[in-house]
Amino acid sequence: MNTAVAGFSKLTKEEKINWIAKEYFFNPEEGISTIKQYWNSDTKLQQLHDDFVENTISNFYLPMGIAPNFLINGKYYSVPMVIEESSVVAAAAKSAKYWSTRGGFKATVLNTEKIGQVHFMFFGEALKLEHFFNKIKPMLIASTESITANMQKRGGGITSLELRNKTSELDNYFQLHATFETKDSMGANFINSCLEQLAKTVKEEAYNYPDFNEVEKNITIVMSILSNYVPNCVVRAEVSCKVDELAENLPTSRQGRIENPSEFAEKLVQAVRIAEIEPFRAVTHNKGIMNGVDAVVLATGNDFRAVEAGVHAYASRNGTYASLSHANIDNGIFTFWMEIPLALGTVGGLTSLHPLVKIALEILEKPSAQELMQIVAVTGLAQNFAALRSLTTTGIQEGHMKMHINNILNQYQTTVDERKMIKNHFENNTISHSAVVTFIENLRK
Amino acid sequence: MNTAVAGFSKLTKEEKINWIAKEYFFNPEEGISTIKQYWNSDTKLQQLHDDFVENTISNFYLPMGIAPNFLINGKYYSVPMVIEESSVVAAAAKSAKYWSTRGGFKATVLNTEKIGQVHFMFFGEALKLEHFFNKIKPMLIASTESITANMQKRGGGITSLELRNKTSELDNYFQLHATFETKDSMGANFINSCLEQLAKTVKEEAYNYPDFNEVEKNITIVMSILSNYVPNCVVRAEVSCKVDELAENLPTSRQGRIENPSEFAEKLVQAVRIAEIEPFRAVTHNKGIMNGVDAVVLATGNDFRAVEAGVHAYASRNGTYASLSHANIDNGIFTFWMEIPLALGTVGGLTSLHPLVKIALEILEKPSAQELMQIVAVTGLAQNFAALRSLTTTGIQEGHMKMHINNILNQYQTTVDERKMIKNHFENNTISHSAVVTFIENLRK
Repeated sequence: MNTAVAGFSKLTKEEKINWIAKEYFFNPEEGISTIKQYWNSDTKLQQLHDDFVENTISNFYLPMGIAPNFLINGKYYSVPMVIEESSVVAAAAKSAKYWSTRGGFKATVLNTEKIGQVHFMFFGEALKLEHFFNKIKPMLIASTESITANMQKRGGGITSLELRNKTSELDNYFQLHATFETKDSMGANFINSCLEQLAKTVKEEAYNYPDFNEVEKNITIVMSILSNYVPNCVVRAEVSCKVDELAENLPTSRQGRIENPSEFAEKLVQAVRIAEIEPFRAVTHNKGIMNGVDAVVLATGNDFRAVEAGVHAYASRNGTYASLSHANIDNGIFTFWMEIPLALGTVGGLTSLHPLVKIALEILEKPSAQELMQIVAVTGLAQNFAALRSLTTTGIQEGHMKMHINNILNQYQTTVDERKMIKNHFENNTISHSAVVTFIENLRK
Repeated sequence: MNTAVAGFSKLTKEEKINWIAKEYFFNPEEGISTIKQYWNSDTKLQQLHDDFVENTISNFYLPMGIAPNFLINGKYYSVPMVIEESSVVAAAAKSAKYWSTRGGFKATVLNTEKIGQVHFMFFGEALKLEHFFNKIKPMLIASTESITANMQKRGGGITSLELRNKTSELDNYFQLHATFETKDSMGANFINSCLEQLAKTVKEEAYNYPDFNEVEKNITIVMSILSNYVPNCVVRAEVSCKVDELAENLPTSRQGRIENPSEFAEKLVQAVRIAEIEPFRAVTHNKGIMNGVDAVVLATGNDFRAVEAGVHAYASRNGTYASLSHANIDNGIFTFWMEIPLALGTVGGLTSLHPLVKIALEILEKPSAQELMQIVAVTGLAQNFAALRSLTTTGIQEGHMKMHINNILNQYQTTVDERKMIKNHFENNTISHSAVVTFIENLRK
């Protein structure tokens, strides 16, 4: 029976690991050795990584792979992807190559507005609050000047500030709703610092506002925080070609169903339509998009939880959770596109700290935040195309299990000879986890 | 100007890196050396990680930290968390400790149903399709037997199969909607293999069904795929105590607003109410929950994109995107809880392959999938509590910047003496990125 531990955060890394080992490991020495096997031999570099978060015991490896041949707005990119799921990098690379011979991807940033809110309670007449707000608005903005000075030099800052009356939804609830331009930074710290200053100022000014009575003077600040919902920070990614051009490398279907490019185009459109109207499908459809999106978000040191929350909320904005991507065939032209909200940074945060994030940004030729939005959205769209192509033709399992087989071979620590025999056998036989395992076990009997 | 590359996937890892370096790096030697600095010295272990995905060039480090003192259903856990964001592990640990002296967390798995669908087009009378389905249903199930045999031994398998008519939403569109029990595995491969078999069988049987005319015989399978939307695979996590018991360690507010436990409890409830009715807040509120959820999902080798998609779709299920967690005060008792869908595995996939995933599962005392659902949900709730506590009292920036300061100190490669002076100075001064940077630069003048 394990117990509570006092002062864990004060222990050294070694002491933390020893406590964990003693408390939880069947073989403490082996466990400690595994944890340490993942430490970097460069002590200073290891210290850097340890300090990113708290109570660090080791470095969790996620593979960093490269998907080359992304032709975006006429320029070739090799996209660094950090992801643990097999077949995602291969699918992105395949999709990139396919579209590079069909005009490539087009991407456009539609807008870059970030949002933050001061949530507060005001007990009094809404009209009086409105007059108060209009009067002190310049003071509110002015009070943030020391925070916004540097951002303004870069062309950013607070772009609007309004009072929102939410009392029809919750008694006495109002907001200061602010919008921001944060240029190449994601802007979370900047926005939160601005909002906390706005909250402080609004509270002080209310207290000293002569037209407020004693109750009205006491505004209650509930919280001040940026929003990860950024429906006006949106990028559009698109591919398009003549339906006939889809012919080259047409996937062969297990059921022999795909006979010509127009049938292929129609199946893709059908699959997207289904994701547009059926939430059970939409969730997985969008999950596939996020396989591509998150892999680049991680590689470039951005926060995938923020991106995920914003994107999925956007997918539900019309009242029913739906597909982010769309497709149509018009006048013999197949078009496949999506618009997604992405608040990303290429300066600040981990981007200047994590050596492999710096490498990833160098591989992407040090993109601006807007360029990164385009690259990320395109990777998501490419991923989605690859998934739809597999799903509507061979099925998802064929490709997936082929990739997965390597993991099984590693798990069983197969020899070079065994691998050859296994791969030969499964050229012509259906791959499943249990089929591979059975084959290995029979081989070894 | 960079160009397309042919046969990239066929290159060795070294060749891939050399191509990347030549193409993109200002200083190729330095770039190559950074990439290799992250390789593991154990060649075999490195090979294992390289094979997880495709075109791998290095290991991306995410810090693995430990949040101890999680008392869940009367048992203490130390929770391994993999996350790059500072302050998340510390916040989880603080929340865990706080609630461990107030009865701990309660967690309950409400259900464990997984879902998958065969999406198909049928051109004919719906009633005839229904008769056909009822007749062949046993054959459909029987055709999956070789796939489901092992799962059935473990108590799982296909738990229901129904025909769904979706033609009111899309012409000719029907589904085989199947539910599954996958026990301790997440079940993606299992479910997809079953579905592809069901698709094959339904197509064959339709072709040979005497009551169908020539058009009806030709069912078009669009795709067969699991759903990451699992609204009946839900876990509930909860904390609760007397309002008076919230008093101990009551946070001191910068604005001196929190005066007593009941005021604290009311502010927490208010903050949650806001997240229930205001989508801009709900998205960030839930993002905070996912900081905790994803960190454990990653550490235990599960797929965070699948979890994210399912959870956020669930948050939007009533037509407006809303808070996942809820709070109330009833009869002097403060209760804070959430229900979230989580399809997780503790066997299969990466769980048996990634050595640090094995370590994470050992630290969690080799949980079943249901136990892991509880631990993950509790970590999310703890994270949410910590965020609400900061937001409604000191503000989020104070704690966040304190954590962030270490990153800045590393970036400027500060000496031990400099660190002491910096930390002393900022004990009593407001921390901001620019304030710290200015202080360092002045120190060094």
